[in-house]
Amino acid sequence: MKVVKFGGSSVADANQIRKITGIIEDDSKRKVIVVSAPGKRYAEDTKTTDLLIELGKSIKNDQMDSQIYEQIIERFSSMTAELELEEQVLHTIKSRIDEAVTQLQSKQKNAMDALKSCGEDGSALMLSAYLKTQGHTSSYVNPKDAGILVSDQPGGALVMDESFDKLYGLREREGILVIPGFFGYTPEGSLVTFSRGGSDITGSIVAAGVQAELYENFTDVDSVFCVNPAIVENPKQLLSLTYKEMRELSYAGFSVFHDEALIPAFKKKIPVCIKNTNNPQGNGTMIVADLPEREEHVVGIASDKGFLNLYVSKYLMNRELGFGRKLLQILEEEEISFEHAPSGIDDMSVIIREHHLSAEKEMKVMDRIKQELDVDTVNIERDMAMIMLVGEGMNQTVGIASQAAEAFRKANVNIEMINQGSSEVSMMFGVHSDALSAAVKSLYHTFFE
Amino acid sequence: MKVVKFGGSSVADANQIRKITGIIEDDSKRKVIVVSAPGKRYAEDTKTTDLLIELGKSIKNDQMDSQIYEQIIERFSSMTAELELEEQVLHTIKSRIDEAVTQLQSKQKNAMDALKSCGEDGSALMLSAYLKTQGHTSSYVNPKDAGILVSDQPGGALVMDESFDKLYGLREREGILVIPGFFGYTPEGSLVTFSRGGSDITGSIVAAGVQAELYENFTDVDSVFCVNPAIVENPKQLLSLTYKEMRELSYAGFSVFHDEALIPAFKKKIPVCIKNTNNPQGNGTMIVADLPEREEHVVGIASDKGFLNLYVSKYLMNRELGFGRKLLQILEEEEISFEHAPSGIDDMSVIIREHHLSAEKEMKVMDRIKQELDVDTVNIERDMAMIMLVGEGMNQTVGIASQAAEAFRKANVNIEMINQGSSEVSMMFGVHSDALSAAVKSLYHTFFE
Repeated sequence: MKVVKFGGSSVADANQIRKITGIIEDDSKRKVIVVSAPGKRYAEDTKTTDLLIELGKSIKNDQMDSQIYEQIIERFSSMTAELELEEQVLHTIKSRIDEAVTQLQSKQKNAMDALKSCGEDGSALMLSAYLKTQGHTSSYVNPKDAGILVSDQPGGALVMDESFDKLYGLREREGILVIPGFFGYTPEGSLVTFSRGGSDITGSIVAAGVQAELYENFTDVDSVFCVNPAIVENPKQLLSLTYKEMRELSYAGFSVFHDEALIPAFKKKIPVCIKNTNNPQGNGTMIVADLPEREEHVVGIASDKGFLNLYVSKYLMNRELGFGRKLLQILEEEEISFEHAPSGIDDMSVIIREHHLSAEKEMKVMDRIKQELDVDTVNIERDMAMIMLVGEGMNQTVGIASQAAEAFRKANVNIEMINQGSSEVSMMFGVHSDALSAAVKSLYHTFFE
Repeated sequence: MKVVKFGGSSVADANQIRKITGIIEDDSKRKVIVVSAPGKRYAEDTKTTDLLIELGKSIKNDQMDSQIYEQIIERFSSMTAELELEEQVLHTIKSRIDEAVTQLQSKQKNAMDALKSCGEDGSALMLSAYLKTQGHTSSYVNPKDAGILVSDQPGGALVMDESFDKLYGLREREGILVIPGFFGYTPEGSLVTFSRGGSDITGSIVAAGVQAELYENFTDVDSVFCVNPAIVENPKQLLSLTYKEMRELSYAGFSVFHDEALIPAFKKKIPVCIKNTNNPQGNGTMIVADLPEREEHVVGIASDKGFLNLYVSKYLMNRELGFGRKLLQILEEEEISFEHAPSGIDDMSVIIREHHLSAEKEMKVMDRIKQELDVDTVNIERDMAMIMLVGEGMNQTVGIASQAAEAFRKANVNIEMINQGSSEVSMMFGVHSDALSAAVKSLYHTFFE
């Protein structure tokens, strides 16, 4: 049994729905399908989920932006019409949207999550109906019915362990099952969504639950590239990766796959394949638990901008038991998560994603550090970028750091920060944002050309 | 006015006392002298401080090891006899030792610190008496009388800010003042010692207090070397260093100068000169606040063994606000100070000096981490060594990391950890202890040959 997830561009219009039906028909093992909300049909198009969020934001008391509302209904009605589906399908989609709007107007808990989930739900309703018209046994399966139980963290739900046993029961059901991605239900029955792009998470959870032989993730690229194609033209495609490698790559700027999506599949050792809906015969990229030893030690270069360095210095810091803990506790109390915390003898840096530190919080945090920790210096350096070299076995290979550092030198880029030694499969470098592109190109040249 | 500190080997016997008297006479600005306890006269000799500690440990109720006691008295009596000092000098030294022994036998607070301080006190009493016999106006100044106020942390006292104003009053006193190093007094009048080697601290505090034009630190080497001479034969001598460079070098294995000793001089911008008692005409090493830009960016390579890596991994660690803080808090509660804490996405390493983690604490810490943090993996890797490259402006120079990493590669040494980015003047590398020597030699070859 294979679990197959189709991304937003794969369900963007009637033609794409027909295309993925073909893909499902090509392999009788493709029995459980997870879908995203209809995505962009052309570059300037708006994703259904963005429309739903905009609609939600426009709601005040019993008011709403009816133009956006009509735009959403139109997207679904044009698809159901072109696919010649029963009227009941559009009716169900519309009443779910209306219900969420009413919940929002009466300020019910998690109502925004309910509205945001209507895109995926609509895709699933349409696809299962279309599969039936093509002569297949198929049913729409709501995540509550499937057994996807999550924590009550709107927009950032975490799956609960009980889900997996329940999901195993899906194996017994007849025909092709279509499950909307992106959301689950709390044990109390409240709908909650995962973080954005969370259909990948649903797919991974379902694949783990039914113990699929393969989790296929269909998107709009042929494979995972070894570097950001916006920086390096036509980069090398990756045929295979380990889970760990993919997770580290996803974290720092690899948008092809959702950062946390792999975890459930990883834990149950389900192989994952990234494929292209528009080129389903291509190799794609296989992601597995273990790989035989490869010649190349560096398999990918991830990079991301938008970091800052909170720098603190204090004489005799290293004599002060608990200094590091106290600094991190201030950040925790202000709900600021950090990425790394390299430290010297009398100084400590904390690398934070810029969007985690608003101007208001920045003032407060700086004041608290000055007053509570009695430091000599505290300052913030913005416009930092992170570059991550990823590859299994890298940390056991003499000379990788040397090649990497030489690549920075050739590009005349100063390395502001190096963090190596904790992760077994990655090495992280901090540079100024304006040097990012030159550094990544030079690293690509060193390790892939 | 210059403050001059003489180390243990410079006051080891009567001949050395005569030698340093000559040094003091050579420069009329050498007005405040700080002395260590008599050190080793020959390689197999025992330092007076070690004898005093041994004596202290032998004390049970009204018992003590009288052989060690006699050995201590003999060291002082042979010196006072050879220097032809009044009997009163030896009598004073002996009664201070006897008093401390009595305090220890009656289990008085801080009595061990009182006993440990008798070496420095004896040196100061002998030197001031000898200076008088040579026709100088000189007086012994007890740290309490001088105004050295410290915190009540036996064996690890920290100086209090009030001390500096009081010490400034020493400028008004007549003649050559001789102050014993290594200890101060709490505001309640209790004698407390600094950490071992703390005479350097006394010298630095006094130099800062009297606002000396120079703090001269006489020891038994011609200068500070750029690398551990036990690893590289006849290494380059350093003519000048900044405070920051010296502090970073001292931290990781540079035993010539006490780790924290520089801070008081640093804060008051007093220049420090390291010189050799046995070659006072040599250049020595000057340590100052700022230096004109130098050609070389790396000025020293420090290295030290005896570290361990506490490694923890947990899926989604980076989603868990407070994880790092909680881990450091467990260490803090078990009173284990850490050196560095590099982190990956789902893992974190904490570098700890091995002697901070006893076998008993190790069990407890591992258990607490497993249970309280619900981690996937926790393990300890021992036999780690740290290498630190030090140099002002290093972090703004493209290519240093590249040269360093290449040196490791040439020596076929795998870099287990790199920590760069917090300190402006250093770059730290972790390697296995057995690779330390090869790596340091290769780095020396790269940066100094």
